[in-house]
Amino acid sequence: MPVGTQGTVKAVTPVHLRDIGAQIILGNTYHLNLRPGSELIRDLGGLHGFMGWDGPILTDSGGFQVFSLSKLREIRDDGVAFQSHLDGATLFLGPKEVMGIQANLGSDIAMVLDECPPWPVERDACALACERSLRWARRCREIASESGFLASGHLVFAIAQGSTYDDLRREAAGALADLDFSGYAVGGVSVGEPEPEMLRQVAATAPFLPEGKPRYTMGLGTPPQILRMIALGVDMFDCVLPTRVARNGLAFTPDGPLNLRNEKFRADPRPVVEGLDNYTCRNFSRAYLRHLFMAGEMLGGTLLTIHNLHFFLDLVAQARARIEAGDFGPWHQAWIRRYEEPK
Amino acid sequence: MPVGTQGTVKAVTPVHLRDIGAQIILGNTYHLNLRPGSELIRDLGGLHGFMGWDGPILTDSGGFQVFSLSKLREIRDDGVAFQSHLDGATLFLGPKEVMGIQANLGSDIAMVLDECPPWPVERDACALACERSLRWARRCREIASESGFLASGHLVFAIAQGSTYDDLRREAAGALADLDFSGYAVGGVSVGEPEPEMLRQVAATAPFLPEGKPRYTMGLGTPPQILRMIALGVDMFDCVLPTRVARNGLAFTPDGPLNLRNEKFRADPRPVVEGLDNYTCRNFSRAYLRHLFMAGEMLGGTLLTIHNLHFFLDLVAQARARIEAGDFGPWHQAWIRRYEEPK
Repeated sequence: MPVGTQGTVKAVTPVHLRDIGAQIILGNTYHLNLRPGSELIRDLGGLHGFMGWDGPILTDSGGFQVFSLSKLREIRDDGVAFQSHLDGATLFLGPKEVMGIQANLGSDIAMVLDECPPWPVERDACALACERSLRWARRCREIASESGFLASGHLVFAIAQGSTYDDLRREAAGALADLDFSGYAVGGVSVGEPEPEMLRQVAATAPFLPEGKPRYTMGLGTPPQILRMIALGVDMFDCVLPTRVARNGLAFTPDGPLNLRNEKFRADPRPVVEGLDNYTCRNFSRAYLRHLFMAGEMLGGTLLTIHNLHFFLDLVAQARARIEAGDFGPWHQAWIRRYEEPK
Repeated sequence: MPVGTQGTVKAVTPVHLRDIGAQIILGNTYHLNLRPGSELIRDLGGLHGFMGWDGPILTDSGGFQVFSLSKLREIRDDGVAFQSHLDGATLFLGPKEVMGIQANLGSDIAMVLDECPPWPVERDACALACERSLRWARRCREIASESGFLASGHLVFAIAQGSTYDDLRREAAGALADLDFSGYAVGGVSVGEPEPEMLRQVAATAPFLPEGKPRYTMGLGTPPQILRMIALGVDMFDCVLPTRVARNGLAFTPDGPLNLRNEKFRADPRPVVEGLDNYTCRNFSRAYLRHLFMAGEMLGGTLLTIHNLHFFLDLVAQARARIEAGDFGPWHQAWIRRYEEPK
């Protein structure tokens, strides 16, 4: 899922998002609720109408940003009080608030409020966060039923925490599975832990999530990480990586990333990736993109965002085809080997 | 003509340029020759191939930027020596150089090298600049013939100078008309003189340019200026105004410009201009655009560039229709009255 934090996938119009085959995008509840506000967005046609995107939208609950961006937060049993990182205003997010905001936004997939413990975290503190997250998830589920959110075709996904404690992860996954959500996220990964530990946590959680429901790791990852998580049974991903680095001139390719500001691309007539069927690769050379970045032209970020997003979407499309063909295992290992090989 | 100074109409992909009906765009010889260099562009398919634009391109000669941007310039009879504003390198542009560069770029319409005197300027200095410009124009014309540039279907436009001296303007226009160029620009306007003086100079030049050839005022203007110059017989315009102010949140409308950062647009559900058929007005509200600008999102500049350029293209399309219908005079006066009326 391309990430549209503030009501726009940065640097690209929905025309180009459609063109690269984006099926669903992500919006950030925390940011949109602070600015411009969820009631305003509701009154202007929901997030779909507001940002001119007619495909599905998943929104997070805002909880993660409360823990990572805001100051002076206070976690209570009924939610979390915090100060806005924009203007310092004191705000509160509980299950009722996050479900209300996501209903205002018109999310197709709403995430429950959870408490994401830092890494590393003591076992007792982690257990407490898991209990609280379970209570909040149950409450979010109830609100989604009572308010008609679920009945009107919207979905709610739960988030299984547990940090590095396998038994807590198993417990959390099992308890949430009993609540019959539409999908399940592995939470508390990519919060500072080393990559092997991150993959270990995904491996420790995924088997305990329901077989027939989508599994989602939030905020991840690099192309090899995505393939490794698919191998562990994960179905959905979102990450700012392809869009953020695009604006700095970093291009993803099957042979690893390229810094297009490099002098060696000065006269390179090739597209970023030969044969990749997106607007940027069909029409522009590496030399042109380099020129745009060297000249400080916004269009460089736009064109490379289109390419990078398409590269990720194409990668998961390939993975899907290989799973269906039955040779995902050797294919993904070969793909990662080529990508990571020193050039 | 939308302006594409450095090989991109800032902030928009050619997809959106096509969509708003852009028929021709402008490229800047001075900038493109310094970075990335005209040979490089030639080797990568000319400016059309390089920037992915398959419509016509007009390029200026680079002379204006030599006079306005570079330091330590020395005007000689065979051209002008100057220092690059990027790295201080000493460079030279004469008729041979500017025609060679524009041939490398693959310009559909090349402009001759001219000397644009400042405003105000003494009569003697102006007369000298006119003589030199005429010699350079003749030399550019010869080079375009000898090199096959004209024979291969490319056009060359001359530029009539003369500053505030009507007789010098008449002389310049007449002498250039005798050389049978494909089109003619009124040069030396919008170089600091007040608007009435600018219009007076256009009025003093246009009648002496050939009837059946396009007339072009370079680097102009606001919507009312464009209409007033059309009334004076001008056919072609280029200006960074619609694109530059778009990136700061200024939107053109028939009721004058709007600053979309203004609080009063916070919840305004209307498009920038009701009923205007461009991507931005069809899909997005003023409130959404305001949100993008307040949140510092690049997409704001992109969407407003699309609107502003389309607003200008639509304006000249309307003017064309009114000329054909025979009521351009009263129509353009009413249009300007509405646009300039205090709100």
